[in-house]
Amino acid sequence: MLDDIEVSELIRSPGIKWARAGGAIPAWIADMDFPVPTPVRDAIAGADLCYPPWEDDPQENPLIGAYVRRTAGKWGHRPDPGAIRLFTDMIHALEAILWVATEPGDAIAVHTPGYPPFLAAVERMGRRLVPIPMVDGGSRWTFDIDRRALAGCRALILVNPQNPTGRVFSRDELSALAAVADTHDLLVIADEIHSELTYEPHRHLAFAPFAPDRTITLASASKAFNLAGLRCAVADVAVPRVRAALDALPERLLGQPGTTGVLGTLAAWEHGEPWLAEVRALLARNRDLVAAAFPGQHVPEATYLAWLRIDAPDGAGVKLSPGPSFGPGGDGFARLNFATSRPVLDEILRRLTRR
Amino acid sequence: MLDDIEVSELIRSPGIKWARAGGAIPAWIADMDFPVPTPVRDAIAGADLCYPPWEDDPQENPLIGAYVRRTAGKWGHRPDPGAIRLFTDMIHALEAILWVATEPGDAIAVHTPGYPPFLAAVERMGRRLVPIPMVDGGSRWTFDIDRRALAGCRALILVNPQNPTGRVFSRDELSALAAVADTHDLLVIADEIHSELTYEPHRHLAFAPFAPDRTITLASASKAFNLAGLRCAVADVAVPRVRAALDALPERLLGQPGTTGVLGTLAAWEHGEPWLAEVRALLARNRDLVAAAFPGQHVPEATYLAWLRIDAPDGAGVKLSPGPSFGPGGDGFARLNFATSRPVLDEILRRLTRR
Ligand SMILES: Cc1ncc(COP(=O)(O)O)c(C=O)c1O
Ligand SMILES: Cc1ncc(COP(=O)(O)O)c(C=O)c1O
Repeated sequence: MLDDIEVSELIRSPGIKWARAGGAIPAWIADMDFPVPTPVRDAIAGADLCYPPWEDDPQENPLIGAYVRRTAGKWGHRPDPGAIRLFTDMIHALEAILWVATEPGDAIAVHTPGYPPFLAAVERMGRRLVPIPMVDGGSRWTFDIDRRALAGCRALILVNPQNPTGRVFSRDELSALAAVADTHDLLVIADEIHSELTYEPHRHLAFAPFAPDRTITLASASKAFNLAGLRCAVADVAVPRVRAALDALPERLLGQPGTTGVLGTLAAWEHGEPWLAEVRALLARNRDLVAAAFPGQHVPEATYLAWLRIDAPDGAGVKLSPGPSFGPGGDGFARLNFATSRPVLDEILRRLTRR
Repeated sequence: MLDDIEVSELIRSPGIKWARAGGAIPAWIADMDFPVPTPVRDAIAGADLCYPPWEDDPQENPLIGAYVRRTAGKWGHRPDPGAIRLFTDMIHALEAILWVATEPGDAIAVHTPGYPPFLAAVERMGRRLVPIPMVDGGSRWTFDIDRRALAGCRALILVNPQNPTGRVFSRDELSALAAVADTHDLLVIADEIHSELTYEPHRHLAFAPFAPDRTITLASASKAFNLAGLRCAVADVAVPRVRAALDALPERLLGQPGTTGVLGTLAAWEHGEPWLAEVRALLARNRDLVAAAFPGQHVPEATYLAWLRIDAPDGAGVKLSPGPSFGPGGDGFARLNFATSRPVLDEILRRLTRR
């Protein structure tokens, strides 16, 4: 059903994207071309917009219990509800945590190429980026940990599944990262926003159980359910000193998601599973189409993003995310968003491979 | 139409309020019992939930222009669009401004009795509250400015129309406040959230033109249009040093309203006027009913809140906001929310005056 969307309909419906792309097919934006799940739409349309029941006590927010249940069911560990804090989005959460838990000049390790807004956040906060380079391991992207380079780091931002390579890190890789984090006493900020878009046979593993005392997990329904505009993110701030530092800020200084953000996310998590299954199947099919169009290149194990070695994509009439914006290792690459219908993807691939 | 709501329907529809009130009629909550304007509901239900067009440049947010136009049309001055910043709610905005523009221990002047969350914010941020007492001036609530008491203050939080007394400050009163602000070099944080609920023959005057160089104005559609859960507030940060201090924070540290908050507020401001006119007429009628039930007491010039000298309201089966929570001057008073239908208000007044 989602797959029937024709190029012409997409031009009409999320028209803004096309307009902004100046005629090229915009395969660079970080949204999917699919309409949001009906239960989410209904929850938003019917939301009571008065002060919510959790106004006077943020711990009464129904998302907290929903997040705990979902994490237990999907990833097999049960966060402490008392450690959950809400943010309006993932960058908001990341900046707030870096703000209270690190200082200007502190070194922060991040896999690179990496999600551009996170690299930008580290930089504008005056923290020092220490790249953990993703390298081409032949059959997939991988990384070596240079233990010396990480000495002196204060924190690791672990984006898993990784953006832009789409790697779903293995148990061994996560164990190695946990060991390094222990050695150097790193705070780990684990962004697992793409975890629900993991393709068979890969298995996402939550990082928290690997290093329970030093891991803060960030989550949001915004990627898997296509809800970035809702502005609602969840942080499991399982590190007591960071939680205390956040809680020492004036109670309302950091703002909060609105009722529609909360209820929309709740509906996605509690009633969005059929939609998610359909979308994931379609994305897996699309991923195979991308793989066929770019033989020999690595396709993602999760995410609707393909990290491709590709030249001068601008001339092709398809707008991709330029590789250099992903930091070190981005030269010569571009990121393709393949979360679209079959006809649109066929056209994208035709344009990209014809040249 | 709004007025036809029966007690029994209210029990069914915003049922949560009644449940929380434990059977008493909840006339203490800061929402209205009326459904939100249809254009707002439609804007929210139809909102594109992808990343919004203003994702990469907050100055592209359509609320900025809408706020400038509305302020020019309603209050006769034209804010600089470049000075507008968005927050998720008014307390968020207040805390962020106090955070960057004042320091712990600084004295902050506020009319008292005052809006409890603002008093609480001043206190939890370790600032010192300097009350400007509202006094019974015979025909209405008024205040004297003790110039000496304000010497050494850093800022004035000016809630106008005032909550809980419902005073709409006069030109003379605002001029006097502007003069004191000049004398003591006060930053003025002007919360004018109730301005659109001003009753004839009173006229709300924006404070910014009285002290353009030292005034930050806070606004939101949340009160007049009953949208507190949307979480969207606007600050006209017309004081360059405060704006610079806010902008020196990491760009995303304070979070942001979601698309539904932005588009809902936009719809209220651009298409909510007929609804607002209907609601204001109904509230004016209700205010007269309150006045008749409590002869000799002052009724508000704006807001749907009546500040009443009333004893032990709890036993009456009506839950009011207890006076002491409004700080100095609150003893012996309670605040009644009269934004409800005729049958409900009649029942409230019957219960309150029977005893
Ligand atoms: C790794 C990663 N984190 C977070 C986000 C979303 O961030 P935000 O919630 O701030 O929009 C994205 C969006 O593409 C992402 O790829
Ligand atoms: C004076 C005043 N300011 C602000 C607000 C709303 O604050 P917020 O947007 O933080 O809910 C209210 C709500 O009753 C109010 O009376």
